[in-house]
Amino acid sequence: MRIGVLTGGGDCPGLNAVIRAVVRKGVGTYGHEFVGFKDGWKGPLEGLTKPLGVQEVRGILPRGGTILGSSRTNPFKIEGGVEQIKKNLAEMGVDALIAIGGEDTLGVATKLHELGVQVVGVPKTIDNDLGATDYTFGFDTAVNIAMEAIDRLHTTAESHHRTVVVEVMGRHAGWIALHSGLAGGANVILIPERPFDLEKVVDHVENRFRTNYSPIIVVSEGAVPAEGDMITLGGELDAFGHVRLGGIGTWLAEQIEKRTGKEARAVVLGHTQRGGTPTAFDRVLATRFGLHAIDAAHEGDWGKMVGLAGTDIVRVPLIEATRELKTVPVEKYSEAEVLFG
Amino acid sequence: MRIGVLTGGGDCPGLNAVIRAVVRKGVGTYGHEFVGFKDGWKGPLEGLTKPLGVQEVRGILPRGGTILGSSRTNPFKIEGGVEQIKKNLAEMGVDALIAIGGEDTLGVATKLHELGVQVVGVPKTIDNDLGATDYTFGFDTAVNIAMEAIDRLHTTAESHHRTVVVEVMGRHAGWIALHSGLAGGANVILIPERPFDLEKVVDHVENRFRTNYSPIIVVSEGAVPAEGDMITLGGELDAFGHVRLGGIGTWLAEQIEKRTGKEARAVVLGHTQRGGTPTAFDRVLATRFGLHAIDAAHEGDWGKMVGLAGTDIVRVPLIEATRELKTVPVEKYSEAEVLFG
Amino acid sequence: MRIGVLTGGGDCPGLNAVIRAVVRKGVGTYGHEFVGFKDGWKGPLEGLTKPLGVQEVRGILPRGGTILGSSRTNPFKIEGGVEQIKKNLAEMGVDALIAIGGEDTLGVATKLHELGVQVVGVPKTIDNDLGATDYTFGFDTAVNIAMEAIDRLHTTAESHHRTVVVEVMGRHAGWIALHSGLAGGANVILIPERPFDLEKVVDHVENRFRTNYSPIIVVSEGAVPAEGDMITLGGELDAFGHVRLGGIGTWLAEQIEKRTGKEARAVVLGHTQRGGTPTAFDRVLATRFGLHAIDAAHEGDWGKMVGLAGTDIVRVPLIEATRELKTVPVEKYSEAEVLFG
Amino acid sequence: MRIGVLTGGGDCPGLNAVIRAVVRKGVGTYGHEFVGFKDGWKGPLEGLTKPLGVQEVRGILPRGGTILGSSRTNPFKIEGGVEQIKKNLAEMGVDALIAIGGEDTLGVATKLHELGVQVVGVPKTIDNDLGATDYTFGFDTAVNIAMEAIDRLHTTAESHHRTVVVEVMGRHAGWIALHSGLAGGANVILIPERPFDLEKVVDHVENRFRTNYSPIIVVSEGAVPAEGDMITLGGELDAFGHVRLGGIGTWLAEQIEKRTGKEARAVVLGHTQRGGTPTAFDRVLATRFGLHAIDAAHEGDWGKMVGLAGTDIVRVPLIEATRELKTVPVEKYSEAEVLFG
Repeated sequence: MRIGVLTGGGDCPGLNAVIRAVVRKGVGTYGHEFVGFKDGWKGPLEGLTKPLGVQEVRGILPRGGTILGSSRTNPFKIEGGVEQIKKNLAEMGVDALIAIGGEDTLGVATKLHELGVQVVGVPKTIDNDLGATDYTFGFDTAVNIAMEAIDRLHTTAESHHRTVVVEVMGRHAGWIALHSGLAGGANVILIPERPFDLEKVVDHVENRFRTNYSPIIVVSEGAVPAEGDMITLGGELDAFGHVRLGGIGTWLAEQIEKRTGKEARAVVLGHTQRGGTPTAFDRVLATRFGLHAIDAAHEGDWGKMVGLAGTDIVRVPLIEATRELKTVPVEKYSEAEVLFG
Repeated sequence: MRIGVLTGGGDCPGLNAVIRAVVRKGVGTYGHEFVGFKDGWKGPLEGLTKPLGVQEVRGILPRGGTILGSSRTNPFKIEGGVEQIKKNLAEMGVDALIAIGGEDTLGVATKLHELGVQVVGVPKTIDNDLGATDYTFGFDTAVNIAMEAIDRLHTTAESHHRTVVVEVMGRHAGWIALHSGLAGGANVILIPERPFDLEKVVDHVENRFRTNYSPIIVVSEGAVPAEGDMITLGGELDAFGHVRLGGIGTWLAEQIEKRTGKEARAVVLGHTQRGGTPTAFDRVLATRFGLHAIDAAHEGDWGKMVGLAGTDIVRVPLIEATRELKTVPVEKYSEAEVLFG
Repeated sequence: MRIGVLTGGGDCPGLNAVIRAVVRKGVGTYGHEFVGFKDGWKGPLEGLTKPLGVQEVRGILPRGGTILGSSRTNPFKIEGGVEQIKKNLAEMGVDALIAIGGEDTLGVATKLHELGVQVVGVPKTIDNDLGATDYTFGFDTAVNIAMEAIDRLHTTAESHHRTVVVEVMGRHAGWIALHSGLAGGANVILIPERPFDLEKVVDHVENRFRTNYSPIIVVSEGAVPAEGDMITLGGELDAFGHVRLGGIGTWLAEQIEKRTGKEARAVVLGHTQRGGTPTAFDRVLATRFGLHAIDAAHEGDWGKMVGLAGTDIVRVPLIEATRELKTVPVEKYSEAEVLFG
Repeated sequence: MRIGVLTGGGDCPGLNAVIRAVVRKGVGTYGHEFVGFKDGWKGPLEGLTKPLGVQEVRGILPRGGTILGSSRTNPFKIEGGVEQIKKNLAEMGVDALIAIGGEDTLGVATKLHELGVQVVGVPKTIDNDLGATDYTFGFDTAVNIAMEAIDRLHTTAESHHRTVVVEVMGRHAGWIALHSGLAGGANVILIPERPFDLEKVVDHVENRFRTNYSPIIVVSEGAVPAEGDMITLGGELDAFGHVRLGGIGTWLAEQIEKRTGKEARAVVLGHTQRGGTPTAFDRVLATRFGLHAIDAAHEGDWGKMVGLAGTDIVRVPLIEATRELKTVPVEKYSEAEVLFG
């Protein structure tokens, strides 16, 4: 078989580990051939390829990013896009695709599968918000980077008796905030799933100062204040309820400084969370995803996605993966809440 | 309630995170009181205690080791040991125990529970070889430390065209070798569950050199050569089939050097794998174990141990935890084997 | 002798290492007694102290921040401040001070020395911009943190074919940008000492894309565009020529995106650069500074500061330390410039 | 000019950074051409080359090891070796060499220079024991790796009330032990330059236990007990006074356990100290060495080596570099000694 591989969406530590495992097992065990498509769905759409053999995947396991490049191109939003992809695959003699990506990339894969393209999916989202898998690779790396930053910021907060607000990734789901906040010993964790009460946050901050410690607040970029505060804020929230100008972290630090009279600073971790070498957890998960994805392709089990269930890799229909966002359930947030303040 | 807490067996990153979570929630949410017992079962046996309140657990989340100390003392191997513990607990007004430890420590907890002591267990083993939980804390940290060492050793191996054998922890189970080997891109992984064929290992090494790369072999301290080689070795194996003098890593490097005629070196990671600050995965798991252990104690659900099942914390009978060693199953090893060579 | 110790200004990895060395040698070798003054010059001014003996400095070597706390209080800006300090020192029986801090803190120390207070200084600035010492502790840690972030951002830049602008600390001196940029393989490094030509920066960016690589630009928070661009910017620069709203990194990313038509993102490292455990270089330097500062105090060599000259610790008059800012000289910047683009 | 580049001796983080800087500036600024010689002096001797242009040095800055490979081949120990090198260089049109290496490699360079070969040297030794430069690259990385291991081992030592002996690199000079021991807060540091008194070491250990802390001893691989103990040891020392069988660390742990009756363990860090990505200090130093080495070659300043003097890169005659080993001077060891116990 001649199989195309592509990576779409935001980059994520572990992408190269998936590619390597797919190719190593695909060539070594099954004798398949591979084509690397560049820059996500743009690759098969525009016929942009690069060689992808055992030699090309040497040494890429520990490297962040993706050797194939990525993009957010969606062939269903381009006239004739789907037909062009089918035509290109046929002309290149590509029998099947392994698509590694998040909601958007796998959404395209799902629809292409329904239109007859032979495709297997590998879930990827640093935010850990895809259904049908316990964890996605990249998440553990992001959480560790955020935790290390929080560890560092504790000493600064203590030395200066100030509040530090750490804004982490997570536009729609609070997984990174929840895990890095728990791991970093944050005093408050704020997530998109649970609009927060600013007064309560300020109470936690003041309580913390009373016991002679300095507060660290971890906030998802997508967290929003609850209704009461939205009214107070007026036009400062955008159409989706997101705080504009400088982000929620900066806004929160300003509010806390104003209300407590004590210095508060925001740190926005940003893209440092998604680059660089993956943790062992992510390298093992990504490698196992790759090994099982090529098994599925070899068996012709199309329209499936690999996923983690406990310690096992399973296959689930692609359509399930993107059906709904996996957000932080109430009980997992409550579990953490007892450590606030 | 007045609850004693103790940590037994080898130290493990995450012990302090458990202690902190138990005390924070126990005091803050339930209003219990705590006593720290020093040095594992030696503490209740000899009445060695230290204060354990919210103040004492401040700042310990990121710290490796255990603030309570540890030991391998087994009260069942000491005459009158069990009676002494019961007497001490009664005199100190300690109503229940939370015991954090591995096979031995939880074995004692199980038997004490059968003799009427109110006890809840928290599983701890850096080797990840306890049944009834998907993972134990400390394991992820050990795997990451080993992986980072392997990453470093790759560049040395390549620069000098030599084989590097990395000996990692794992006397009876190969989990650390399997995961760190997968994560580090080892060319061969050898584990105690699968006696290895030295000839095959040498084949992998020579094959690797043929493709102009230098081999890294990851071996569990408890791995042993298969029968054929044992005969060749003669008296060099001890009564349990373990290679004496210098460990299996050193022996293997010597054999490879002898048979390939190319330089081979062994690195024994040893205790560096079990100290230091825990990874985010281990801090979160340990914290959640602690939060759920104090729930169990609060509810009087004695004789139970907390465990991880998928992404949930569950309770299992203590007796199940220690029933048998969780070793690497054949299919997980085979999964990795396709990447050898 | 009874010696007070204080730490002033922004926190910096290595402060605790200095304190520990001062106390360990001061007590163990010379038999002096110590008083910890809290929060910089606020401590002696308001009589805020904490015990400072061998027990208090146990285990603090690897910890970031300062166990004594810090502030920017300047007794010369408070009426009667200096007299109050002298009175407090006399009443507490404090014979001398060891002041650890930057330009401001040592400026106060210099003037107090001229007014008869027995004081020894230890230089501290994460920016490395103090004269009379080759390096200050904290700088190496900050550079490593920035470098690790740059390493991570390279993979993101490559995967998305975008420019990443990394804003690092350095309001008046570009040392952190220069060293982290060199270490991280930045394509352009922009520092306060050298107003930059935006056109040239854009040329480097486009040149980099032409060779199929993605640019990383490292910019000091205090860097400014050269005159030509200031005119274009109009009111967007503040009175000191600093770009307002979002900082220079954000501004630069916007300009590059606008002019190249290719995505550009800014990452502001902020306070993560100054917290956390020090590197070995900083721990050794800070420890040696502490050991030599207590020697100076023991010998009554007041009004001096310790400094690094090559591999030796030397003593220099306090007044020299703060005479002028140590900025990046033209030849060191030119050395790096050949690697741009 | 057509310039050959080679790396000899043990691998060392920073070698690739030197190569990259030489080639980037050599091509970009001066327009020279480069040839990569493989495996140290073996390369020019046997005519083993690889292409070395701007493309080949892309992305190698953060990578440990050497893309050119290394060996300990000495052409002066091979009959006709020198003539063969001269002949090969002439035939390949190689006008000059940049040799990066330690005592042996630069020793060869020195003699070849005397025989008319145009050569510039770059000093490399992880042990920091080359004269004529304040520091060599690789040393800072090794010290940081050792320090991190010591940090980890502290928590294990404390939890189990045991002594941990950490054996670090340094056969003839104690720089790595001194710096990592100071940085890691070791209780005793033992170096080759100062034969140690076992009784005193045991005193420090027991003193440490008395204050309820657990000792960490850092020992260079080349450290030896003083005469009195050598007699006791009998045949256990080899001809050079080095302890055989298992190394000095293992021997010392056994002795301490025997004499104190408390558990002691040895950890031998070995090759993990020399692999992997360099620290910022080493990347900057190596890059600057490379930039200045190509300047020297461009100017035809043959027979010179670059070195670090304070914060400046200087040139010194090659012959000075290898004249004598730079060992730890008495005053630097004494400085650290006050922190023992």
